This record gives sequence, structure tokens and C-alpha cells, in this order.
Amino acid sequence: MDSTLDSPVLHVNGDRLWSDLMELATIGAYDDEATGLVGVDRQSLTDEDAEGRRLVIGWMEDAGLEVTIDPMGSIFGRRAGRRDDLEPVMAGSHIDTVATAGAFDGCLGVLSGIEVVRTLDDQGIVTERPIVIAAFTEEEGVRFGTDMLGSAVAAGRIDLETAYGLTDAEGKRFGDELRRIGFVGSAPVLLDPPYSYVECHIEQGPVLQQKDVAIGVVTGVQSISWQRVTLHGRAAHAGTTPTELRVDAGLAAAQIIVKVREMVDSGRYGRLRGTVGHITASPGLPSVVPDRAEITVDLRNPEDHHMEAAERDLDEFLSALPDAQPGLRVETRRMARTRQVPFSVDVQETIAKSAADLGHPVDQLMSGAGHDAQEIAAIAPTAMVFVRGQHDGISHNPREYSTPEDCAAGASVLANTILRLAQENTR
Amino acid sequence: MDSTLDSPVLHVNGDRLWSDLMELATIGAYDDEATGLVGVDRQSLTDEDAEGRRLVIGWMEDAGLEVTIDPMGSIFGRRAGRRDDLEPVMAGSHIDTVATAGAFDGCLGVLSGIEVVRTLDDQGIVTERPIVIAAFTEEEGVRFGTDMLGSAVAAGRIDLETAYGLTDAEGKRFGDELRRIGFVGSAPVLLDPPYSYVECHIEQGPVLQQKDVAIGVVTGVQSISWQRVTLHGRAAHAGTTPTELRVDAGLAAAQIIVKVREMVDSGRYGRLRGTVGHITASPGLPSVVPDRAEITVDLRNPEDHHMEAAERDLDEFLSALPDAQPGLRVETRRMARTRQVPFSVDVQETIAKSAADLGHPVDQLMSGAGHDAQEIAAIAPTAMVFVRGQHDGISHNPREYSTPEDCAAGASVLANTILRLAQENTR
Repeated sequence: MDSTLDSPVLHVNGDRLWSDLMELATIGAYDDEATGLVGVDRQSLTDEDAEGRRLVIGWMEDAGLEVTIDPMGSIFGRRAGRRDDLEPVMAGSHIDTVATAGAFDGCLGVLSGIEVVRTLDDQGIVTERPIVIAAFTEEEGVRFGTDMLGSAVAAGRIDLETAYGLTDAEGKRFGDELRRIGFVGSAPVLLDPPYSYVECHIEQGPVLQQKDVAIGVVTGVQSISWQRVTLHGRAAHAGTTPTELRVDAGLAAAQIIVKVREMVDSGRYGRLRGTVGHITASPGLPSVVPDRAEITVDLRNPEDHHMEAAERDLDEFLSALPDAQPGLRVETRRMARTRQVPFSVDVQETIAKSAADLGHPVDQLMSGAGHDAQEIAAIAPTAMVFVRGQHDGISHNPREYSTPEDCAAGASVLANTILRLAQENTR
Repeated sequence: MDSTLDSPVLHVNGDRLWSDLMELATIGAYDDEATGLVGVDRQSLTDEDAEGRRLVIGWMEDAGLEVTIDPMGSIFGRRAGRRDDLEPVMAGSHIDTVATAGAFDGCLGVLSGIEVVRTLDDQGIVTERPIVIAAFTEEEGVRFGTDMLGSAVAAGRIDLETAYGLTDAEGKRFGDELRRIGFVGSAPVLLDPPYSYVECHIEQGPVLQQKDVAIGVVTGVQSISWQRVTLHGRAAHAGTTPTELRVDAGLAAAQIIVKVREMVDSGRYGRLRGTVGHITASPGLPSVVPDRAEITVDLRNPEDHHMEAAERDLDEFLSALPDAQPGLRVETRRMARTRQVPFSVDVQETIAKSAADLGHPVDQLMSGAGHDAQEIAAIAPTAMVFVRGQHDGISHNPREYSTPEDCAAGASVLANTILRLAQENTR
């Protein structure tokens, strides 16, 4: 039976949450030329990340949480329950950012979790189950090339040695950088499966804004494919080498970029999204045909069969490139590949009930971005609360913005969801 | 009348020339990953360039030349004539290289000039006119973005202040770097027009090899257009931002690269060549749509009207890019633009006569690459001697190679050409 009938409807302190979000955003702040705004660059295992971690741990300890750190540097703050032997309800996200970030991506999930604990304390509520607030390491994957890294190791999908061996653009190893910033913890590598996991996150898309609702209940995460494609050609003089004798690695890279957009526009692959974010060519001189080019191809699709078709057709296109330029060598390396992840219907319903108690209409939607929740979903019933973004939900950009009211609404939905889950199946 | 009838036919010392070429190539030598060969990276105004300059000046002084340096760092070695008041015959080229160079581009022209002086000394020949051997600064243009820079200033096309203000990729100014390596000279900025200028250079193309002749008489240099194109888009999340809301700077760059090749293949622009050698995108992360991309476009054409048509059509294409991606901003900066340069028919005939005296069949051809000769052609009768290259004349690559025999043949043609010119119109 459900003991939440006698529980109050919780409202978090939105001002307290907002001031935490703004304070964390000052760490790694930079003046963004493209937007004229102040952005955030707090990539994983940098000095800025370490400073952000210390700030968050301080807030956790001020909220009375018992803080532990695992060997990946992921941070866990635990609030005891009346039945402290029961599996905890977990909420969390990450605080690492891309190089051109805003203040909300990831941070809202961690800080709203801490705010929920403060709210329970203010109300003098002790839950049956313990509650754990988590901040996972390197969710963005921009520095070490694999996203959801901390939660993937905690859930057992990637092993610790593999993670430690990953290197950044400068060749620095993840393990060495984690040691450098002093965040190699002693908690178990594999996370004890929680009773359930809930992640509050900005939508990073335009759907909720278009439907004019502040809260989304996330049904799952779409399939994501990342690969690095390296083209090996031959350097040659731009003015004298006949076109038919060239093996132009930069041209081949450009043909792939154009092809990816053609595939997206074709509509043949459902709601495929394709992005080439990383593009380099060497030696990089105006008068020399590039002998080497490197790009990354990011494909997303809500349906696995459409993703598989897109990957198959792109592979065929890559294999055919040397037909047009004999001598060209195409090398691909898989960086990440996740299948579509459906979330727990029970947890989705609990989120919807909690939103209803607060009078918030909700929309159901699938996540276009990858989240730590999709990793934890492998070991525990999981779902997510999405918060409406402004400016078409632009994200990974300093223009990323959600209003204080919407952030508070998301945190209050998270609070009531955690409270309900923390009282479930406790007798 | 012509006083060369009583002159001997000169043969340079090929071993001496070859050993100089190989010794200069050790300065800036590096192991080239792409080819497995040893390449040369001696870009302008680097420490390696300075070391190469000191070696060449030593050779000039050993050959009894009076060495002067101009405010651009260009080096001139003068051999007195019997009629020392007459305008000198000048021969030269450059010793700076691209980042992935071989041993011959530029260096052959300077070192064969020094070898010609040694040969005249060995024969006890004093010419009527003085002879000057020149090594011009930053011909490649790969470091400061403008090629033929030293000769362009010497010929008055570019002024000294403009040249000094040019910056490299790290923002270092040309003037500061020239001062740093200690090569700011006191010779006049504007070169006193020589009687004639002859440049010996490797072909950097396949024509002479295909026609099985060692020597080419160059009729002129084709038109060259360099521009930098910067695309300004908007950074956005790769997984969530709908395709129609994206302003993808990297995609626009790729479309330009593909378009340039389409223009070349179309045949609509004569013997157009097009190269995009420099390609970058930022922030350069797999999951972020690039907000900025930068490329260089290098166009070459033997005929000015075809070049103008190609540039006009490319400009139209660039202007239309924002139609497909509203919000995209396209910024172009002209880096270099030279019209087709015809060489002196008289000097070409003197080169052909000298080759005939040596028993070398010749082919007439136009240069696909830019050379210091095209700048000096503005102030003096000028032509070039091309030397056959191997491997389809590949250049700007460690595989660049001309045989010792072909290098000696080119230097001997240069020797007899200089001797003829140095006796002309002296009464």
C-alpha cells in the first residue's frame, strides 16, 4: 500500500535553487564571442571541474548528506531513511560541461536534488527509504570522447581500466587527470542498484516551449551513434598537381559532411539527426592538398531500426569514397553507440502524479540527448523530469536558459516524486 | 651586338650543387608520418629559416660575393662585372618551405645561382655586367598568409609597413619575427631594376616527365587567387536541436569545398585548379553544431577571363549560402590575387639558346605555381628555367624529387643564360 496519502505536497525554495545554479555557473565562466554572452566552460577533470565539485560537496554536507566518491570520481550524497537498510531512491545528473555551455545542462539535476533534501529537512520529513543525490563524472564526453562515462562505469557497461585509459586531445589519460584533481574515491566501482532513479534535466529542445508546458515526462532516450572518421590522402602542390592525380582528404571529409545532411533531409531514416562537430585537416596550408582529415559523425534516432539503416548506408558511402579518389584510405573508430532506452512506466506515472498534485500540466516526450539516466536504467527503474527551455530550447550554448519559475517547478516535481518513491513498498 | 660568340659553353659542377642541396635540406628535417620519408619544415622567419640563411650566406661569401640584406630580410650576393656601373643580371628564388616540403622547391634556384658563380670563377670568366644571386623572404606564404612576400615588397607591389603588420597563426607579427631572427637589413626596400632576372626552379608538375625532357622554358605564371572564408553559425546541441533550427557553419564550409571541386570538374572555367587546404571548425566537439568554420580557397587559372568567371560564380555561391541556412554569416578575406604574368620572350629565347648549346631539348610551358619571378617581372625582363621532377612532379611533399643530373642540367642552362645576358648591350 501507499503511505504517501498522508504526505504533504512539497514546494521547493526556488530562490535558493536559482542562487545555487547561478553560483555554480561562475566557475568556468568565459566571455563568449559568438553570442556576446557569458558562457560556461567546465570540462571534465579540469581545475574548474574540481572547483565545481568542491562547491557541490560543500552544499551536500551543509544539507547533512553523507558524501562518498567512487573510483571514477562520481559523487554521492546520502540522506538516511527510517528504514535505512532499504534500497535508496536516487536522483542526480552531472556538473561537467561542454566548451560553450550554459548554466543548466546537468547542473539542474544535481542542484535540484540537493534542494529537495533541504526541503524535506525544512518540513521535518524523514522518508522510509534513504535518498541519494548523485553527480556523475564526464557525462558530456567532450574531453575523453565517451559520454555518460561515470554512470556507464557505475552501471557496469564500461570497465574501470578502459575508462582510465581514455585520453583527451592532448593525450592526457583520464586516470591521471582524475588523480591530478584528487577525486579518486573508495566507494565501490559498481553502484548498488537503487530502488529507483529520477533525473531532472532541461529539455535541450523546443517541444515543451512549443506546447506551452513547463514539465515533460520523459519516456526514454533515443539511440545515439558517435564515430570518428579519419581520411588519409596525399599532400600535393595546389597549383601544379593535376586534379586527377590528387588524393584530397579534405574533399572526402566535406563529401561526408554533405552526405550526412542529405540523409537527414531525405526522411528515409525516420527522425534521424546528424551532426559533424569536429573537423580538422592537415597540414592545413592554403597551397597544399590535405593529406589527412578527421571528422566526428554524431547520429541520433528515436527508433533503432532507422538508426541501423542510417549507419549501414553511411558505411556504404564511406567504403565507396576511394572509388572516386583511388589511394584514399578511410579509417573509422566507434566512439559511442547506445540503443534506444525505454524508461520505467511506473516511475513515469509517479512523476505525472506529482506534477498533477502541483497543478502542472505535462507532456510526454522522448529525449534527444544522452543522459546518465539511460545508464542507470540498466540496473534500476528509471525516468526523467524535463524542464522547459527558452529560445527553442537551445543548449550547449551560452543562450541556454530556463526561467527560475520553470526550474523551481521541475525541482518541486522531483521532490514529490522522490517522496512518493521513498515511501513505496516499505512494508 | 652579342659578345657571347667567343664565350665557352659552361658546365656546372653537379656534385657540388647536389651536396649543397642535401646539406641545406638537413635544416628543418623531420620524419614524415604520411610518407615514411624525411621531409623539410623550414617555414619563414623560424629558427630553422635563420640557420638556413646563415648557411647560404656563408656559401655566398665563400664564392666571393658581396652580401647585402634588405629590410624584408631578402638576401643579395653580388659579383662585380667589368662594367660594374651597368645593371646586373639577377638570378634567385627562396629557401623558405611549406610544413611538409622536400629539398628542391626554391632552394634549387638559390643554390644553382651560387654554383654558377663558382663555375665562372673556375673558368676565370669576368662578365661585363655584374651578377646578383637573390634569396627572397617568405615566398611560400604559408606562415604569414601572403606568398611571394619578399619579392613583392622588393618590386613595390606591397609596402613594407603592410608586410611588417602581417601575423602568423599565433598572432606573431612579421616585423617582430624578422627582428627576432636578426635579419632586418639596410639595403634599399625597393630593388634597383636589374638588367634581367632568371629563376631556375623545379617544375612541381608532371609535364616535363611526361614529355621526357629535363628542361622547360617557362612562358609565364598563371593567375592565382587565395581567399579565407569564415562561416559564422550558431552552436547548438547535436541531439536535440531540430535540423531546421540549425545554423551549421561546418556544413556550409563542406558545401563550399564540394562546390569548388564541382567547378573544377565542370570544365566551364578552362584549366581551373581549386584547393581547400585549410579547414577548421569550432568548438570542434562531437555533440555541438559548429558555430564557426574557416577555410582557405586557392584557385589557379592560366587564363584571366576564366579565373574571373570562376571567382564571380564562387562569390555568387557564397552569397546564396544563407538562403539555405538563415542566420548564417559568410565573411571573406582576400589573401592573394595575381593576374596571369607573361614572361619576356627575349629572355625565354636566351634560355632556349643556352639549352640548345648544351644539347638539351626543351619544352615550353606555363607555371602552375606562383614564383618570385612573377613579382620581379614587373620591373625587369624575366623568365624561368624549369627542371623535371619525378613522381608526376609531386611537390610540397617529402616525395618531391629531381635527379642530380636534371638539377645539374638546369644549373648549366642557368649558367649559360646568365653569361649571355651579362654580355648583352654592353657597348
